Amino acid sequence: MKTIGFIGLGVMGKSMAHNLLKAGYPLVVHTRTKIKATELLEEGAVWKETIAELAQEADVIITMVGYPQDVEDVYFRENGLLEHVKEGAYLIDMTTSPPSLAEKIYKEAKKKNVFALDAPVSGGDIGAKEGRLAIMVGGDEAAFQECKPIFEVLGTNIVFQGKAGAGQHAKMCNQIAIATNMIGVCEALAYAKQSGLDPWKVLESISQGAAGSWSLNNLAPRMLKGNFEPGFYVKHFIKDMKIALAEAEGMNLLLPGLSLAKQMYEELAAEGEENSGTQALYKRYEQI
Amino acid sequence: MKTIGFIGLGVMGKSMAHNLLKAGYPLVVHTRTKIKATELLEEGAVWKETIAELAQEADVIITMVGYPQDVEDVYFRENGLLEHVKEGAYLIDMTTSPPSLAEKIYKEAKKKNVFALDAPVSGGDIGAKEGRLAIMVGGDEAAFQECKPIFEVLGTNIVFQGKAGAGQHAKMCNQIAIATNMIGVCEALAYAKQSGLDPWKVLESISQGAAGSWSLNNLAPRMLKGNFEPGFYVKHFIKDMKIALAEAEGMNLLLPGLSLAKQMYEELAAEGEENSGTQALYKRYEQI
Repeated sequence: MKTIGFIGLGVMGKSMAHNLLKAGYPLVVHTRTKIKATELLEEGAVWKETIAELAQEADVIITMVGYPQDVEDVYFRENGLLEHVKEGAYLIDMTTSPPSLAEKIYKEAKKKNVFALDAPVSGGDIGAKEGRLAIMVGGDEAAFQECKPIFEVLGTNIVFQGKAGAGQHAKMCNQIAIATNMIGVCEALAYAKQSGLDPWKVLESISQGAAGSWSLNNLAPRMLKGNFEPGFYVKHFIKDMKIALAEAEGMNLLLPGLSLAKQMYEELAAEGEENSGTQALYKRYEQI
Repeated sequence: MKTIGFIGLGVMGKSMAHNLLKAGYPLVVHTRTKIKATELLEEGAVWKETIAELAQEADVIITMVGYPQDVEDVYFRENGLLEHVKEGAYLIDMTTSPPSLAEKIYKEAKKKNVFALDAPVSGGDIGAKEGRLAIMVGGDEAAFQECKPIFEVLGTNIVFQGKAGAGQHAKMCNQIAIATNMIGVCEALAYAKQSGLDPWKVLESISQGAAGSWSLNNLAPRMLKGNFEPGFYVKHFIKDMKIALAEAEGMNLLLPGLSLAKQMYEELAAEGEENSGTQALYKRYEQI
């Protein structure tokens, strides 16, 4: 069985690493804050003090970090992944990061006879925990096939999207659809309240029909209960929207809905909500 | 069994009237274009040459016409419904029309000891045909209970939303949620195509997760196939968005997502797409 190196043990990464261990993969781990690895080490994962040490032992390396800058750093810095990865190994970035960065990693990896895949996920903390993520993969198809058993431990909806960067592009599509819909969900609820309706009864009427969506079914109830705890952070959503808009601009594609969503979320973050869940967008309508 | 008068036999109205006939209700019908009633008359409905004649015979009168102006006309014009409706009868407007108009009808009806309900629907031509509409009802609860058996012939998700106008307000919430989401669906697909992805594979990745919605599942495939046939007309959607925005303005509620959607749909209509289905919004992104 391949030895897997896992870098980045946040809410998502920790659950994913746990599932790989449970599936029997030898696991070496590294993360900036060692304490986050405690449980995994108790379960049998092996700590590596540096990325270099981890890279020297792993056949497959998965990164699940925070921001594009973190990905850039882990792969390209001195003593980073690309400097120390073994020939013939697989590098899988599952962070949501720019398609252009995925292409850059792919090209650098290729020079060293290393296979790189971009494989961002959707499904949140619960999907990660239950091994039910959607995984969107870009890179060489042979490399994808080789790593598929690993993806199958982590997710249930695994789709090869095309060449390097295609996984990240597909994830952008996901975020674009979510972003604009979130505005609609908030506005429907705000209208319901303002017009004196019982918003719960409105949900009863509209959530199973043409207005229905995952966000309406799952996040509207949280909005109404005043639960703005993060499933998915506002700050991470803004990061994703920025990537998508920058990419769209580069393709001469105007996305007015996404632009509006990004603007509204940035205003929300400026009001101190960057660590709230994305459903906190509703607060902007409550204030009016 | 109550005799039902049905006014307005468009795509929706015809199916609904048919289901009432099938359920055994004596049915008298009237519509501007008599030919639209042909099938129903063959099935046993009785034609009434004027609204006045229809009103004199019906215990319950359902209106399912086009625009607010049509509703206004049918109810308030000389020889209209409110002039000729029987005392103790029920007037049910199932057209999507302004909440303020529903209140006006309710008040006028009350003066004549007539019960008025606003009961707009969601579920489209297929929902109407299959008797599976969502019906959102406003008015007096006793009147709602009295008419409930009729609603149960027409729909499966029947919710009493509150006082006169509340049904129309709930329908506005439905349209608001749909409008902004449609932008997100189009933008996700446009981004997929422009970035060189296979948009069908993208749908495979994103449609069952947090980006999922009725529109993504049902209308995105039509967009990709170039099928812009109307399930729901652009021109009717614009009418609904205008009502919702006017109501929101009256409540001092800012709805930037809905405003954007209305603007984009108006531009689309100006390009000659007013008789296309709402999924034709995608064409605006293809042109770029």
